[in-house]
Amino acid sequence: MSFDMNKIPHIGEVSAVHGAYDINAPVKKDTMTLKERQLMHNKMIGSIEEAIRFVGLKDGMTISFHHHFRNGDFVVNQVMEVIARMGFKNLTLAASSLTDIHEPLIEHIKNGVVTHIETSGLRGKLAEAVSHGLMDFPIIFRSHGGRAAAIETGELHIDVAFLGAPSCDPYGNANGYNRDNEEGSCCGSLGYAKLDAIMADKCVIITDNIVPFPNAPFGIPESQVDCIVKVDSVGDPKGIMSGATRYTKNPKELLIAKMAADVIEASGYFNDGFSMQMGSGGASLATARFLREKMIAKNIKARFALGGITGQIVEMHEEGLIGKILDVQSFDLVAANSLKNNRFHQQIDASYYASYVNRGAAVNQLDFVILSALEVDTDFNINVLTGSDGVIRGAIGGHPDTAAGASLTIVVAPLTRGRIPSVVDKVNTIVTPGKTVDVLVTDQGVAVNPNRPEIAERLIAADIPVFPIEKLKARAERIVGTPAPIQYEDRIVGVVMYRDNSVIDVIRQVKDVSLDD
Amino acid sequence: MSFDMNKIPHIGEVSAVHGAYDINAPVKKDTMTLKERQLMHNKMIGSIEEAIRFVGLKDGMTISFHHHFRNGDFVVNQVMEVIARMGFKNLTLAASSLTDIHEPLIEHIKNGVVTHIETSGLRGKLAEAVSHGLMDFPIIFRSHGGRAAAIETGELHIDVAFLGAPSCDPYGNANGYNRDNEEGSCCGSLGYAKLDAIMADKCVIITDNIVPFPNAPFGIPESQVDCIVKVDSVGDPKGIMSGATRYTKNPKELLIAKMAADVIEASGYFNDGFSMQMGSGGASLATARFLREKMIAKNIKARFALGGITGQIVEMHEEGLIGKILDVQSFDLVAANSLKNNRFHQQIDASYYASYVNRGAAVNQLDFVILSALEVDTDFNINVLTGSDGVIRGAIGGHPDTAAGASLTIVVAPLTRGRIPSVVDKVNTIVTPGKTVDVLVTDQGVAVNPNRPEIAERLIAADIPVFPIEKLKARAERIVGTPAPIQYEDRIVGVVMYRDNSVIDVIRQVKDVSLDD
Repeated sequence: MSFDMNKIPHIGEVSAVHGAYDINAPVKKDTMTLKERQLMHNKMIGSIEEAIRFVGLKDGMTISFHHHFRNGDFVVNQVMEVIARMGFKNLTLAASSLTDIHEPLIEHIKNGVVTHIETSGLRGKLAEAVSHGLMDFPIIFRSHGGRAAAIETGELHIDVAFLGAPSCDPYGNANGYNRDNEEGSCCGSLGYAKLDAIMADKCVIITDNIVPFPNAPFGIPESQVDCIVKVDSVGDPKGIMSGATRYTKNPKELLIAKMAADVIEASGYFNDGFSMQMGSGGASLATARFLREKMIAKNIKARFALGGITGQIVEMHEEGLIGKILDVQSFDLVAANSLKNNRFHQQIDASYYASYVNRGAAVNQLDFVILSALEVDTDFNINVLTGSDGVIRGAIGGHPDTAAGASLTIVVAPLTRGRIPSVVDKVNTIVTPGKTVDVLVTDQGVAVNPNRPEIAERLIAADIPVFPIEKLKARAERIVGTPAPIQYEDRIVGVVMYRDNSVIDVIRQVKDVSLDD
Repeated sequence: MSFDMNKIPHIGEVSAVHGAYDINAPVKKDTMTLKERQLMHNKMIGSIEEAIRFVGLKDGMTISFHHHFRNGDFVVNQVMEVIARMGFKNLTLAASSLTDIHEPLIEHIKNGVVTHIETSGLRGKLAEAVSHGLMDFPIIFRSHGGRAAAIETGELHIDVAFLGAPSCDPYGNANGYNRDNEEGSCCGSLGYAKLDAIMADKCVIITDNIVPFPNAPFGIPESQVDCIVKVDSVGDPKGIMSGATRYTKNPKELLIAKMAADVIEASGYFNDGFSMQMGSGGASLATARFLREKMIAKNIKARFALGGITGQIVEMHEEGLIGKILDVQSFDLVAANSLKNNRFHQQIDASYYASYVNRGAAVNQLDFVILSALEVDTDFNINVLTGSDGVIRGAIGGHPDTAAGASLTIVVAPLTRGRIPSVVDKVNTIVTPGKTVDVLVTDQGVAVNPNRPEIAERLIAADIPVFPIEKLKARAERIVGTPAPIQYEDRIVGVVMYRDNSVIDVIRQVKDVSLDD
């Protein structure tokens, strides 16, 4: 039967018909066995340098990393060393967070390899240097949900993601754990990395543990991975996570935790089927312990726990006190192993967790969240990013995301730390706006946002010591005095984005104060 | 400290700084409890009609459906009835597949509600009507991998996906099973639906079973769902799937299956750690049973099984004969329950399964696949779409995807069906190009593609009756004669896309032959 291309109505020009499809082209079918393929080619590449060439990295591009390896991370430094050696310049480094171990970035910034940084946080010598004016371009700080949203809207376009993984098969199925080797690195959830893999133009997996295909269930699927590099080590297991998160023994933190649990109990949100998130600070973690006792006493169970997950939450899940766990980041090995073995402990990505641009983030289903703070001001604004000296020393994390999402946002902080008050007139840096913060719990009493009079009533009815926040501020000042204002230069070294990626604050260069001033 | 917007270097105009963020805006925080939220608002919408208004459906848009409910599906018909009543016209209906139960579409086509259809297959009265010229625009037939690729490249842009789900929570986490009600509908994997949820502009979940938040682990995440409608029933459980796929008792199919297992054994691909996919036809399913015996006898285990999954594969997995299961579509309740309860039986989406545009589909890791055929021609081209009368009566499925991906593609077919030969000079419709097909197994002997002389040698060495395919064709003709050529009109009613979405063939309108012709 003869065929006239123009006779296909409404389809337009077509490339081939009835047997014309490539029928004379040489056969290119891959006839190797699965085993041969795994050994021979697939997507494994000999070195980080080859991978960088393979994905076509260019000056000025944006590269991304995840922070699931925390202070044990070897991936950022290994990759950046190769990138610097290869002579690339003017890169934007968009990490989900950075910490002490990333100090070598200072040299890469000085040499012009990295000119822009986006991150949730910054600590250690790198943070010190940035606060003292290391970079020409200010660092962009985003919350975990804000970063996810920026990636989804294209505001943060990732050219190449370099994602460390404790296990990966030769075709790219990657996990935050492995099933073959108890000694290897392990980080549990790859929640922040998952979104980078989805959205980056190119995705390179860096692993120290190649496992047989298919590494299923997978955290990152092969279909999103361009190539894989095996290195000697992706990180120091001890720095990546502890065996189990330790309970605080600090009496002030325990006092705060107990009070926070009392607040929850009296708040009106402590009902069967509630939901919760606990931050990773000592007091907020300890709150879970006190809450557990109340749950058992009153036979109240939680539907789910969200966020960064610890062994404490896993234990409560296994006791039947928490129905399900949605895990964007595993804080200890107990949590990581639970994620690996328990199908009701589910890995979620950063967008599902907290993005405001998708069609429904899990933070919006929180009854309450317990969050830490470096500073709280009398408008309930929260600073978790800069210290009392104005130097960057923290991370935004999911703070503003969960504060906005939760029905009841409880911030815990000691009234004073050493000679430093935590409750102040104006925080150095606004990270979380006060209108999303409901209750402040300190070791010296509780304050309730005037927006939530019904909560204040309930707490007072339960004999919880509630004060106007100005009174707590005054008490802090009585104890430690009013600190002298921080001396800043005009120059802006950091820009703090709210979770909708509008600018909520800026961080200025701190003034070098010489000894004879 | 005063702030000058222009002093933020390299950031440009900013929306607010230090405390200016929405600080005076009214508080909009949602203070309901999780329970109240689930009951009160979230994303549930009162009816299909309200959902259609909510997502802003317009004339000329493209709507999508999945076919995981097979011939038990009530979703397409329910939604289309409402759409028709609301007066929409000129829609493109892009289903992952359509079958007998979708006969009511005929009226919607006649009334101009649906003017374009994309699907993997078509059966029953709708297929008859299309073959006889029902539609002005030809139907676009794509393979499962080709559809995924077309969605990913934007060639197929979905405006609104209407996705049926056997369970969903009020925030949109949807699953192909439910944990609370053994009587409800159940389809197991939502593999084809998952990609639609990711890529559609708007996503509506249609369910008959609302479960508490979070319905985790989820097949479709809340973050991709715009709204949810509860209907009385999404489908007929009996039509959605059987309790367990029955073994064929057809002696010809059993003969073919045994021969196919012998071919696998002799092919050079039957080694410990192999991988496989079995199609859903009687003979290809039975092949798994014979293969199982050989695996036990030789102590050979498979790394993974892929594709549409049956209870037979689950049983072999549970016996330890198959390491992992990658499931894009569950064919029976045994498979669906395994997917629900076994973390090494993983749900995968259509892109991961078979798309050629992502960075690595699972079909590329297949050692062999067993596929059925309606017709095979002497160039090894395969037809699974049109019958011997030229009428559409099948579905492309993953046929061309797995044939191209697998190292060894084995097609099984009886040499004749009734008075119809299966091996012919030229197939009516090319669905899978012969260059991707390696071996044909019939009840009357085996043929090997001349492209794979090494396979022919191995089979002959194992005393398998190998013939030139022309000999098989001649034998078929000796048995049933040469059928008269099908009478077609010039008009094209279907366009068959290869998996790279180039046109591989067209389907023409069949001629109405009156009785006195």
